[in-house]
Amino acid sequence: MTDVSSALATLDKSTDAALARLFDLLKISSISTDPQFKGDCQRAAQWLADELKGIGFDASVRPTAGHPMVVAHAKANRANAPHVLFYGHYDVQPVDPLNLWETDPFAPRLVDAPKGQQIVARGSSDDKGQLMTFVEACRALQANGGLPCDVTILFEGEEECGSPSLPAFLKANKDELKADIALVCDTNMWDTQTPAITTMLRGLVFHEVVIKAASRDLHSGMFGGPAANPIRILSHILAGLHDADGRVTLPGFYDGVSELPADVAKQWQALPFDAKHFLGYVGLSVPAGEKGRSVLEQIWARPTCEMNGIIGGYTGEGAKTVLPAEARAKVSFRLVGQQEPAKIVKAFEAHVRAGLPADCKAEFISHGASPALQLPFASPELSKARAALQSEWGKETVLVGSGGSIPIIGLFKSELNLDSLMVGFALESDKIHSPNEKYELSSFKGGMRSWVRVLEALGQ
Amino acid sequence: MTDVSSALATLDKSTDAALARLFDLLKISSISTDPQFKGDCQRAAQWLADELKGIGFDASVRPTAGHPMVVAHAKANRANAPHVLFYGHYDVQPVDPLNLWETDPFAPRLVDAPKGQQIVARGSSDDKGQLMTFVEACRALQANGGLPCDVTILFEGEEECGSPSLPAFLKANKDELKADIALVCDTNMWDTQTPAITTMLRGLVFHEVVIKAASRDLHSGMFGGPAANPIRILSHILAGLHDADGRVTLPGFYDGVSELPADVAKQWQALPFDAKHFLGYVGLSVPAGEKGRSVLEQIWARPTCEMNGIIGGYTGEGAKTVLPAEARAKVSFRLVGQQEPAKIVKAFEAHVRAGLPADCKAEFISHGASPALQLPFASPELSKARAALQSEWGKETVLVGSGGSIPIIGLFKSELNLDSLMVGFALESDKIHSPNEKYELSSFKGGMRSWVRVLEALGQ
Repeated sequence: MTDVSSALATLDKSTDAALARLFDLLKISSISTDPQFKGDCQRAAQWLADELKGIGFDASVRPTAGHPMVVAHAKANRANAPHVLFYGHYDVQPVDPLNLWETDPFAPRLVDAPKGQQIVARGSSDDKGQLMTFVEACRALQANGGLPCDVTILFEGEEECGSPSLPAFLKANKDELKADIALVCDTNMWDTQTPAITTMLRGLVFHEVVIKAASRDLHSGMFGGPAANPIRILSHILAGLHDADGRVTLPGFYDGVSELPADVAKQWQALPFDAKHFLGYVGLSVPAGEKGRSVLEQIWARPTCEMNGIIGGYTGEGAKTVLPAEARAKVSFRLVGQQEPAKIVKAFEAHVRAGLPADCKAEFISHGASPALQLPFASPELSKARAALQSEWGKETVLVGSGGSIPIIGLFKSELNLDSLMVGFALESDKIHSPNEKYELSSFKGGMRSWVRVLEALGQ
Repeated sequence: MTDVSSALATLDKSTDAALARLFDLLKISSISTDPQFKGDCQRAAQWLADELKGIGFDASVRPTAGHPMVVAHAKANRANAPHVLFYGHYDVQPVDPLNLWETDPFAPRLVDAPKGQQIVARGSSDDKGQLMTFVEACRALQANGGLPCDVTILFEGEEECGSPSLPAFLKANKDELKADIALVCDTNMWDTQTPAITTMLRGLVFHEVVIKAASRDLHSGMFGGPAANPIRILSHILAGLHDADGRVTLPGFYDGVSELPADVAKQWQALPFDAKHFLGYVGLSVPAGEKGRSVLEQIWARPTCEMNGIIGGYTGEGAKTVLPAEARAKVSFRLVGQQEPAKIVKAFEAHVRAGLPADCKAEFISHGASPALQLPFASPELSKARAALQSEWGKETVLVGSGGSIPIIGLFKSELNLDSLMVGFALESDKIHSPNEKYELSSFKGGMRSWVRVLEALGQ
């Protein structure tokens, strides 16, 4: 039988040793985008496999066309226990601009900060520090009665360069990676003291439209007036995508969009989220999304339509009196709930065509279409993890959304048919991808303890 | 006393000699944009000055910061005659792509074509052939009783590169260039048999607007929804510039726009102008300008608003989920009649500002603002030239507009306070600026004869 109290006590007594192991991993410059660090990525994978072997996992380094995966299995201390698949990534972002780092990005150190100590190094937060919280939790559990769940671990080495090898790897190893739920530790807490689980990821339809008018660029003196202007047509089309209340006008766009459960809505309203600060940070002050929706709803729980790029005609310095032959825009839709990407694409294309004069045409280029991912609010694993985190941190676990997509979560759903429980201990202030990346020591310690409790809860 | 009949007879008898002189000028590769042809520009200017001296003009080559001007004066055969200022340009466009020329661009030749002979060479139409029609008319008049008007000639060598030296030259030589009207030979006939005078040139306001939203580019997952999107704002602003009938919505935009005189409107309606062909030539079929206006009106007599360029966000290959910090558009207005450029600029800027959320701002860059130029329909010189051309060609002279601006005409107005009578004998099919440029022999012969008649008429 797992002894949670002893496991937690073990963790508390052995923080220094856990930190020393994390530092060993942080010293390996496993930058995945730069081929000169290929050997370091291999070394990081091997280091992790060795660590996992040391705590009773059947672990191996698996080659891919890119950097290797690490796969490890360990059985629970009882039969028929639930099976979790834990995911993390050992690769890190490049370190440039190097001159903005206060010390060597691969010489990890503990730094005293006003609110406690911080682990400073490239990868301390994203994602080596986070994944080691889980490894150390497993170590403590193994030393105190064993794992409450069957555990499979998958560490990737290409997350920072778009996970090119992951889809094929999941497909090829579907059976080996079978589990009841995925645990992903690559997200944030709400704040230093409040745990969070990310349960909603918006989907994304990214579509490009090219409006073609005349067969060639025209002189606006010769043809200005009678000749169709594709920039004008495109502007009309884009301007027609939202109504005065900021709602998207495409017919059927809101099909599959649900309102939040009352308790989640209430939790969000109560959150100390300062919309003024959120917008003010980037120089804005007026929420531009749907009227009647809070900013948190707008970014987590409501779909959007945004123009990400537009180009047409002469865009250099000064003037050129050209009527361009074409104009193009990149338009994306963030999706939530059960919105169907294919229907959104169809409605968008129909909207564009309806705005075209008879002698103009539109061409479309798809840059991807993926649905929103939502861990059902009624999921028993969500309830268990939520309670486990609350017992560790002494504060209600916030169920957050994420405005952006996380492709891995989509792959787990599509390739392995797994929902993901996203529990992370990073903070917005961790400067991931930037110089002087840090991870709060309290995140590392609380994270290790949290996983002991979450695994215990999931094992019940 | 000028003997018009004899002058015309002289021209008819000496076509070969006139052609030989034109060929001498065409052999000089006076390409103004390319510094390696600087000496050729100088040679062309000198050749023209020498020719003019040979027919009794007081002619000189005047240096400028760029290529030289040629200025020449000759008195009428009576005192107190009207004074005309004739303008043409001796510089030509570059010849590339050279491989598309059937023969050397600077080896002029007569070519038999189905509808008559053509002079083929760079500059044959634009503008050496055209300016020589006037020189040869003067030669014939000088040999047959003298000039009916005081004539000042100004030949420029920088028209094809934007006339950089012209404004300062006009300012510095205002008194010497004083005249009653300018004659410009750089435009087209209606067709090979129908003479035309260009009486309306649309003005141009060219303005750039930059919409600024967030202080930096944002991630559309993180901020999509609540953050203002400058492309969306810009699209709304641009889409609001026209109403459903294609009219420009800016308040006061049509102030100063008059309806055509009834006779001109009637003439335009009767013109064999095929709107379907005009649009079909560039792959279009639906007139996009103001409803209820013919295509000719739309390009010659009605003001427009066009977007000439737009850019914002990510415009490379593929997808990038960015919410840009800014978006910009180049917007131009073609003006007619008495529309005031400054008022249009003001109305446009007010329209933009009215479309901005409180936390966004707009910046503007002016790329020029010039009013329309119109030779008054009641001008006596216009009536005289119109009748003179009709007597030469046996067909009613068409009063045409030009959708584009001709900066020189604006300079004559602003610097010398001169209206311009634009009489030219080129054709749309002359391939000016393109390989195998040609000028119809009938244009050359009819052009020489026309100037004899026009000068005679203006001298009355």
